[in-house]
Amino acid sequence: MFDIANVNSTLVDFDPVSGLSRTRKSLVRRLSHMKAIFHDRAAVDRTLQGEDPVIYEFYDMGMPETSGDVAFGTSIAYPGKIGDEYHMTKGHFHTVLDTAEVYYCLQGHGLMMMESPEGAVEVQELRKGMAVYVPGRYAHRSINISAEDPLVTFFAFPGHAGHDYGTIETKGFRKLVVERGGAPALIDNPLWIK
Amino acid sequence: MFDIANVNSTLVDFDPVSGLSRTRKSLVRRLSHMKAIFHDRAAVDRTLQGEDPVIYEFYDMGMPETSGDVAFGTSIAYPGKIGDEYHMTKGHFHTVLDTAEVYYCLQGHGLMMMESPEGAVEVQELRKGMAVYVPGRYAHRSINISAEDPLVTFFAFPGHAGHDYGTIETKGFRKLVVERGGAPALIDNPLWIK
Repeated sequence: MFDIANVNSTLVDFDPVSGLSRTRKSLVRRLSHMKAIFHDRAAVDRTLQGEDPVIYEFYDMGMPETSGDVAFGTSIAYPGKIGDEYHMTKGHFHTVLDTAEVYYCLQGHGLMMMESPEGAVEVQELRKGMAVYVPGRYAHRSINISAEDPLVTFFAFPGHAGHDYGTIETKGFRKLVVERGGAPALIDNPLWIK
Repeated sequence: MFDIANVNSTLVDFDPVSGLSRTRKSLVRRLSHMKAIFHDRAAVDRTLQGEDPVIYEFYDMGMPETSGDVAFGTSIAYPGKIGDEYHMTKGHFHTVLDTAEVYYCLQGHGLMMMESPEGAVEVQELRKGMAVYVPGRYAHRSINISAEDPLVTFFAFPGHAGHDYGTIETKGFRKLVVERGGAPALIDNPLWIK
């Protein structure tokens, strides 16, 4: 607006409905990138014979990875199911385990699944206007339980947190959310590795 | 949604239009709390003879003040002017100077005024859907330049950052935003103390 060189601050657009940025490139996660994440492997294979759907996408602003910085962006999980399991993000621990993350829901209806290394499980419901604070030490995953709408969140976490996707990819979460009789149900993950 | 005791995670509502929470109590800043912040002291006194308007309010979730935590909430600056100066927040440095903050604009039209201790000034324009990253070391203040609408932002910063309001209350920002001919103009702060 004024004739000032903005050299250190950053301005980014994230559409509050779609979650998408017109100026930044998202990281796209298709089903083929997360075949081992959904519990119904036969449903994964059947789906991939026809298409390779985008399950979710998110933004990484590339902020410095220091404890004084804040990593932020939007995450968009698209509606749908693989077998009876709702579309969701891979989920991750932070590499620096005891670092938190906040999610503010901009659109949609979903769940935040959280699990500590010791096996404490927490689930919070996300709707537009709800903020969920994921405390340090909890792996977390967003699950879209709407049949029609993307689940769009704005997230922020400490710059030095890092991502540990490997633990979840190897072991899985202890609990899954599947559709039973048209509604979300929490079940034990049959593929969970202790 | 499920029968799980959520004991460590936190769920908070922030209306995406008004920015207000139905379940949490905001911190309200009226003109009488910030008499020394606006440059036109006569206009401050005139206004206070009639009323004591709410200039802005915000939320403090009381998260632990560690580098692994994230302080978050919404901030709402109401439209209006004191003399020719737009309603704005007090503005502050972080006590741990080199800590950043991100603001995602949910409603309204405003400016993020930023200033480093060495005198570098940056201004970014906030509209619904724009995120501003305030880098570490910059004092920052939100200014509402809409005549009708609140400026509503969702903010997040490192839990250990802390707030230093005193420096700005004593010295002021080097630059102010005032209305000139119906539009915002950037001027030197006549009250700035070197």
